[in-house]
Amino acid sequence: MSSYKPAYFRVASVDPSQPPQQPQQPQQHQQQSTTDPAEFVRDLLAKEACCEATSVRPLFCQLDQLNSVPGPDGLSLTQVWREKFRWIKFEEELEVTGNRWSVPYVPVLSPFSVMEARRQLDSGLTLLMKVDSDDGPAAAGGLKCIAEEVEANLVTRLGTDAAEEVKRLLLTRHINFVEKVEDKDEENAGRKTNKKYRKKVHKDAEGCSIMVGAVQTLRAPVSVFVRLEQPLKDEPLMEIDLPIRFLYLLLGPKPSALSDLVLVAKAVATLMTDEIFHKVAYLANSKVELIAGVDEFLKCSSILPPIGCSLTDRIPPPMEKPNTEHRHADQKEPQEPAVVEHGEAEGLQRTGRLFGGLVQDVKRRAPWYKSDFLDALHPQTIGSFFFIYFACIAPIITFGGMLSDATNGYLGAMESILSGLICGVSYALFAGQPLTILGSTGPVLVFETIVFKMCDRYHWDYLPFRWWIGMWTALLLLVTVALDLSYLVKYITRFTEESFALLIAVIFVYEALAKLFKISSDYPVNKYWHPKHEVIVECECLPNDNLTELIPVPPKMARQLPTYRDGNVTVANFSAMDYYSWDHDLFWRTCPQYGGVWVGRGCGLFNVPDVFFFSCLLFIATFFLCYTLKKARASSLFPTFVRRLISDFAVMIAICVVTSVDYIMDLHTPKLLIPVSFEPTLGYTYRGWVVRPFGNNPWFTSLIAIGPALLATILVFLDQQITSVIVNRRENKMRKGAGFHLDLLVVAVCIAINSALGLPWFVAATVLSINHVLSLREESECTAPGERPVLLGCRENRVTGLLVFLCIGLSVFMSPLLRHIPMPVLYGVFLFMGVASLNGMQLFDRFLLLLQPRKNQPDMACLREVKLWRVHLFTGIQLGCFALLWVVKKISLISIAFPLMVLSLCFARKLLDYVFTRNELRLLDDLLPEQKLEETIRLRRRSRMSTAVDLEELAQAEDDEQEKAV
Amino acid sequence: MSSYKPAYFRVASVDPSQPPQQPQQPQQHQQQSTTDPAEFVRDLLAKEACCEATSVRPLFCQLDQLNSVPGPDGLSLTQVWREKFRWIKFEEELEVTGNRWSVPYVPVLSPFSVMEARRQLDSGLTLLMKVDSDDGPAAAGGLKCIAEEVEANLVTRLGTDAAEEVKRLLLTRHINFVEKVEDKDEENAGRKTNKKYRKKVHKDAEGCSIMVGAVQTLRAPVSVFVRLEQPLKDEPLMEIDLPIRFLYLLLGPKPSALSDLVLVAKAVATLMTDEIFHKVAYLANSKVELIAGVDEFLKCSSILPPIGCSLTDRIPPPMEKPNTEHRHADQKEPQEPAVVEHGEAEGLQRTGRLFGGLVQDVKRRAPWYKSDFLDALHPQTIGSFFFIYFACIAPIITFGGMLSDATNGYLGAMESILSGLICGVSYALFAGQPLTILGSTGPVLVFETIVFKMCDRYHWDYLPFRWWIGMWTALLLLVTVALDLSYLVKYITRFTEESFALLIAVIFVYEALAKLFKISSDYPVNKYWHPKHEVIVECECLPNDNLTELIPVPPKMARQLPTYRDGNVTVANFSAMDYYSWDHDLFWRTCPQYGGVWVGRGCGLFNVPDVFFFSCLLFIATFFLCYTLKKARASSLFPTFVRRLISDFAVMIAICVVTSVDYIMDLHTPKLLIPVSFEPTLGYTYRGWVVRPFGNNPWFTSLIAIGPALLATILVFLDQQITSVIVNRRENKMRKGAGFHLDLLVVAVCIAINSALGLPWFVAATVLSINHVLSLREESECTAPGERPVLLGCRENRVTGLLVFLCIGLSVFMSPLLRHIPMPVLYGVFLFMGVASLNGMQLFDRFLLLLQPRKNQPDMACLREVKLWRVHLFTGIQLGCFALLWVVKKISLISIAFPLMVLSLCFARKLLDYVFTRNELRLLDDLLPEQKLEETIRLRRRSRMSTAVDLEELAQAEDDEQEKAV
Repeated sequence: MSSYKPAYFRVASVDPSQPPQQPQQPQQHQQQSTTDPAEFVRDLLAKEACCEATSVRPLFCQLDQLNSVPGPDGLSLTQVWREKFRWIKFEEELEVTGNRWSVPYVPVLSPFSVMEARRQLDSGLTLLMKVDSDDGPAAAGGLKCIAEEVEANLVTRLGTDAAEEVKRLLLTRHINFVEKVEDKDEENAGRKTNKKYRKKVHKDAEGCSIMVGAVQTLRAPVSVFVRLEQPLKDEPLMEIDLPIRFLYLLLGPKPSALSDLVLVAKAVATLMTDEIFHKVAYLANSKVELIAGVDEFLKCSSILPPIGCSLTDRIPPPMEKPNTEHRHADQKEPQEPAVVEHGEAEGLQRTGRLFGGLVQDVKRRAPWYKSDFLDALHPQTIGSFFFIYFACIAPIITFGGMLSDATNGYLGAMESILSGLICGVSYALFAGQPLTILGSTGPVLVFETIVFKMCDRYHWDYLPFRWWIGMWTALLLLVTVALDLSYLVKYITRFTEESFALLIAVIFVYEALAKLFKISSDYPVNKYWHPKHEVIVECECLPNDNLTELIPVPPKMARQLPTYRDGNVTVANFSAMDYYSWDHDLFWRTCPQYGGVWVGRGCGLFNVPDVFFFSCLLFIATFFLCYTLKKARASSLFPTFVRRLISDFAVMIAICVVTSVDYIMDLHTPKLLIPVSFEPTLGYTYRGWVVRPFGNNPWFTSLIAIGPALLATILVFLDQQITSVIVNRRENKMRKGAGFHLDLLVVAVCIAINSALGLPWFVAATVLSINHVLSLREESECTAPGERPVLLGCRENRVTGLLVFLCIGLSVFMSPLLRHIPMPVLYGVFLFMGVASLNGMQLFDRFLLLLQPRKNQPDMACLREVKLWRVHLFTGIQLGCFALLWVVKKISLISIAFPLMVLSLCFARKLLDYVFTRNELRLLDDLLPEQKLEETIRLRRRSRMSTAVDLEELAQAEDDEQEKAV
Repeated sequence: MSSYKPAYFRVASVDPSQPPQQPQQPQQHQQQSTTDPAEFVRDLLAKEACCEATSVRPLFCQLDQLNSVPGPDGLSLTQVWREKFRWIKFEEELEVTGNRWSVPYVPVLSPFSVMEARRQLDSGLTLLMKVDSDDGPAAAGGLKCIAEEVEANLVTRLGTDAAEEVKRLLLTRHINFVEKVEDKDEENAGRKTNKKYRKKVHKDAEGCSIMVGAVQTLRAPVSVFVRLEQPLKDEPLMEIDLPIRFLYLLLGPKPSALSDLVLVAKAVATLMTDEIFHKVAYLANSKVELIAGVDEFLKCSSILPPIGCSLTDRIPPPMEKPNTEHRHADQKEPQEPAVVEHGEAEGLQRTGRLFGGLVQDVKRRAPWYKSDFLDALHPQTIGSFFFIYFACIAPIITFGGMLSDATNGYLGAMESILSGLICGVSYALFAGQPLTILGSTGPVLVFETIVFKMCDRYHWDYLPFRWWIGMWTALLLLVTVALDLSYLVKYITRFTEESFALLIAVIFVYEALAKLFKISSDYPVNKYWHPKHEVIVECECLPNDNLTELIPVPPKMARQLPTYRDGNVTVANFSAMDYYSWDHDLFWRTCPQYGGVWVGRGCGLFNVPDVFFFSCLLFIATFFLCYTLKKARASSLFPTFVRRLISDFAVMIAICVVTSVDYIMDLHTPKLLIPVSFEPTLGYTYRGWVVRPFGNNPWFTSLIAIGPALLATILVFLDQQITSVIVNRRENKMRKGAGFHLDLLVVAVCIAINSALGLPWFVAATVLSINHVLSLREESECTAPGERPVLLGCRENRVTGLLVFLCIGLSVFMSPLLRHIPMPVLYGVFLFMGVASLNGMQLFDRFLLLLQPRKNQPDMACLREVKLWRVHLFTGIQLGCFALLWVVKKISLISIAFPLMVLSLCFARKLLDYVFTRNELRLLDDLLPEQKLEETIRLRRRSRMSTAVDLEELAQAEDDEQEKAV
């Protein structure tokens, strides 16, 4: 052990006056005479760790300064140790007010103070007693005994007087920040400790008490470092009640500045809280080993020049812990795990047997089935339930409203809620990964829209045709499950996923705005109004004597015309009270359709005052509220849980607030179409709960449906499996394994059932699923101020999902309330969902690069290694693919083929292998689901100029940041 | 000089196996045997600086790596030096793509690499030739000659072969990043340098070329540091064409890692760009002095522990340069200048003589009068003119519209423009500080509103009463000038100013919203509309046979009723085409007033469709556009000048865009009231350009006016002088001096003139004035990437102000265009002005503290040293004062006294001296104008969690950040 000669400290031994030496190599590899401190320490830790692994504990450090305070008589001065700094991972300073801790920050040391600390540890008194690793009794005799031992050791160095002074100071009273000086007479009886802060420190942690002071009576500085055999317990040295293992005392003679001594003591404290050095402090058998620890620390530290930092700066803790793997001896595995293809992920291998994957899934999940219910017995699941319920109900209603618009009321909010009940409950009970949340998704909405338009064109009955599509789709999905085709998900890269995601986001934004502007055609603005005040709108529907033939009644209109039921066309008696939703177009057409005529001077100037602009205001308000409230999590106002509540329920709050405003204004804005009682949106007159497979359709429609079914299969497969991979990715630390094939089977069965009942299809919804997982995650409880909590795992259970969808089922009874929700509010939510999904998209960030001058571009990983024009080329190709998708979706003749185009994106991506190098593609296009989140966070840490930030992630990061100490 | 023994490097010389030494003191004050490197370097620089001050030049460093590239024959490999890093102040790395520089960042060094660099400088070959300080000829013989000298010096150390190899490498070709390898055959003929980057380097700068490589043939490392007597010129060593003064060559034997060698070379480069060390490098006479320089650098550097930083991090340059004053020997003055009271500022002392201050002002400014015009001969003034013109015209029109609302059209946009012409031109020609910009301000608007209401209550004529107030005010201001009372400004602290500013901001927000909602009473929403479509609004104005007496015609209405001029009450012929602005209230009342009656079934249900909600949309759009465009400056999109343009003209763009939308929609929204041709807003019928001093008012109103005049004097004085102090503060580096008394005199004269002409009063407008100064500031042209430009001064001139207000005067001819501006747009601008002024207010930040949990609070200076509840108490008192102001303003009986309340805030502040300690007040309440900006920036740098950010400052800071190199 004494063979340690630090490799880098020869510098000062070269006397400048001597003739120049034979130059030596800057690297020490070939020089056996000196030792690399890092290697030395690695060897030491490896050797010691195997025999006494348990003795190393986390450390809490506290630095106390020697202060003089008025004594009990109020006249003479007494000396006390006053707390000034503390460390768990990062440094905190007690502000001069004495009752407020600074934010945690990275300790900034002076190079010379570290070297002085090294020198003092070396030349001062360093007592390294052998650590008793058992949680044994406290040190016999307590502090007093130790102080006497220190005194005895110091007598030869300093003389009797000074040694006695040191002993006295060691026994001097400490006053921590929760105590007052006046408490000091009461001795230990009234000792106050910081119980709240105790929770931030590991339960097995031990303490290191550091004392520093300038003393009049000393002639020379005194440095005493003591590692105790048995920790001190119940000694009132520190702010929190911990067994104290280390003592460090640094005293200087009075003329020396206390601030200089404190710098040296801070260096010791920073060493003691260092990941590696604190192990060395526990395991070192000699001073030499301790000093080697200091050198290792120095080797791994960084020097910032004067221009970059000053000693008084408070540097915030880094978002991500710097990589220190190289400091650990025993971690030999590669730091960046080789990229695992999805196909190789657990549960996605091809078995080669029919239903092989499915059988494996069932075998994997069956043993956990009981625990899936028992693991829900935790208060966290209650919070998760409320959060996910409200997070689900809002989009179900929104998509319901959109679907109703798209399918003329055949599929509406009522059907969506019912579908949620059936799919959600089945999935929660039988799926392989019950944490995935099903919902309506953008692609399915687009698909339904296209199918409905198709039926309209060929005059087919919608629901029966859809019945066939559903059955075929379920069959095809079953084949997919049987053949373990889920492994194909490995051909999906970020390129494909983001082009597709962009399409969906743009559809959301476009549809939201288009629907909003459509209101202005149903509720025309009065452009002819004039202050001249000659508005004369006289127009009434009067019966026509020449009763013409009746035109077939469109389903929705019939609901609006109760009078029709009696067969009497007394159109003048129309009563709006009976309308579920007033639709100008239909209304305006109604009178002539039933043989009436509009009579009056104002009939040509029909308009609905105020409704359109008021709808715009509702729309803007909803979007703005959603956006602002969602961001509330990153605000610094209010306690964390309040902000989290506001952020989690942002959409819900926005809908409620804006709907209330609309209700108060009472302006006949278009409302959500939903029946008062439990019945189909269009009522039993137009559809029942069981769809007849043919209806009025010709027989061959059942065969034609295979085409759309094939396309639907592609969509459902992509939507479902991409989300599944994201939920099951390694970072989430799931313990119970995935069930990709079983999941898909449940979805297939639900699609069959829903098609038979005429309900919308549900597949895995990415954002909801991620939120579900996040809301159930288990984190390490004690985290040092400034440190991010560590994810331990996830409370994998079936109960939250089950309860959520049962309650969503019960929401059918809320329909009298839901009927008050204006459609512009739902459009606003839709816009928000589109805009939010644009954020955090790498494609979007790369698109911005096109507009950013080179010097303003963020420090993205791909920019460092790929030439800019090649990045732009990649972005350009991706945007081209998106444009193609958009065009296909827009041309109604071929729009049904758009899922096929999504699939062709995978092939387009394959072609890119011939345009870009392997390395360029690695940087520009990941295997998406595994790495997306990591990458984004890493990028953000590197660049503080990053422009686009994903809301969810930002919130998460901020949350973690807020978990700091009080 | 050889007495230098570094004080802190004894550590390594203590052999751990030796018995413990007699401990030494950690401070070296009492030890004369060692030297503090910092003191040593200070002495060195002080001594050398006096004799050869001119020889030290700024340095540019470039690090080249030895690379092998295919030779001319395409087969064998040739060695070349390839550029990899460069430094002006901060480090830049050439990314692996080879055509992109990283963002500039703070160099992060390893402690051991710095020590190795120190060792190599010490033990390697260090040739310090005496620097020839004259800008003499290039080194004779060029690089070749130097290479030979190096070779000769190395022969004894390394042997002939190695020395020859070093010579060869020194003469090896360099390829910088603007060159291609293929260029290399063309020799110097086609040398490419980076001319754009040259501008970032000081024109007198010299170069330091650093070469680092691993060489197969060497046995031992070679370090060569050369300072040349005459710099190398025209040698193609570096990316830019600079005389090269320093050469550093570091070669290692092949098995050593190039990356390790690069770390050491980077340490040398960082040293060479260090503020102090580069002077040492120029002035050192011996190696010892050079090494002392390294030690001084180390002493002033910071060590970050492994948890806080890693060597690969790119740390962004700090917003503010860390304080390095202590490193300079010759700067003995205190770093924080003692707080200067405003009274002691230049031009604010009491002379004790009548008009003493005024005479001094004239004497001070007169010699500069000619230069005030000549200094405008710079392209920057053109940009400044356009910016300030558009920045001024928008608020003048906005305030004009608001004043018109407040005074029933007596003072309107036309009057505002005219006032701008008179006041602006006079001020630009005669004021002491022509950079101050006059404008309408919030307090004056409030005052005018109150006076008008007062006149309304007592049935006095407004303009004549205002004539008297204006004259008295002018007189009182004259007295203020005569008695040098401007010194009183020293009693205004941030406490007073911010309470007052908050009042103004809240008034802006309140008024904007109140005015918007007032639209809904003029243009009622149709709440009775019903889909039943029985809207029957039949209502016509028909002549009444029982013609009743005529009610006196209110001035505004008369303009709207051209038919009245003929004396014929044919009200049914009202034509909106003739209306300047349609006003429902007036309109609705018109018919009965002229003896008509409204006849029809719909008369009870009168409403104006769509206008109110459309106005809301315009209002929101304007506010949102202003806010977003203003923030554009901080965006990363588009080049700096585009963003600056967008940000500077944000309000103008917003007004134009939204007005266009309104024009297209053509919905009869209320418009700005302004005559088509040059005449008073109400037309000559109701007022002329000369106000009669009494009008119909009783004689005693001239005496009553003294009361309001006293209050107006307080307001004008406060508004004018606070702005003046801000404009003239030291940081702006004005050279021509201030003229507080002269400024006030000009304002007083303008108030007298404007009152006589019936125009609004103009006083100094803070935001506009600051923008004017900023737009004219001269900055150092060469700034290193990552460095903020240094303010050199300001182009103080009278021409920009003069031209701006002449053009504003010409804007009266724009009135046909201005008439299209809808009032909701102006309200939106008003709201924006209010909200923008809330940002950056310390009171607002402190108010947020009340809502922030302790751990989320920003790291404000006051929080570090003042207990939280005392901060809250201060905030509470301040809010109380604000509430009192608000109440006084609202109670119409005493609202006129509100300027008095503002004054009383100064007394309230005095009382706080008894509640808070001196130190607390220093932290909570500055002498406002000098320190506000500095303080805010400092706070922001300290805390990255700061919530509220002043838009202007943010933009400024970001601008500076954008000024980075390409």
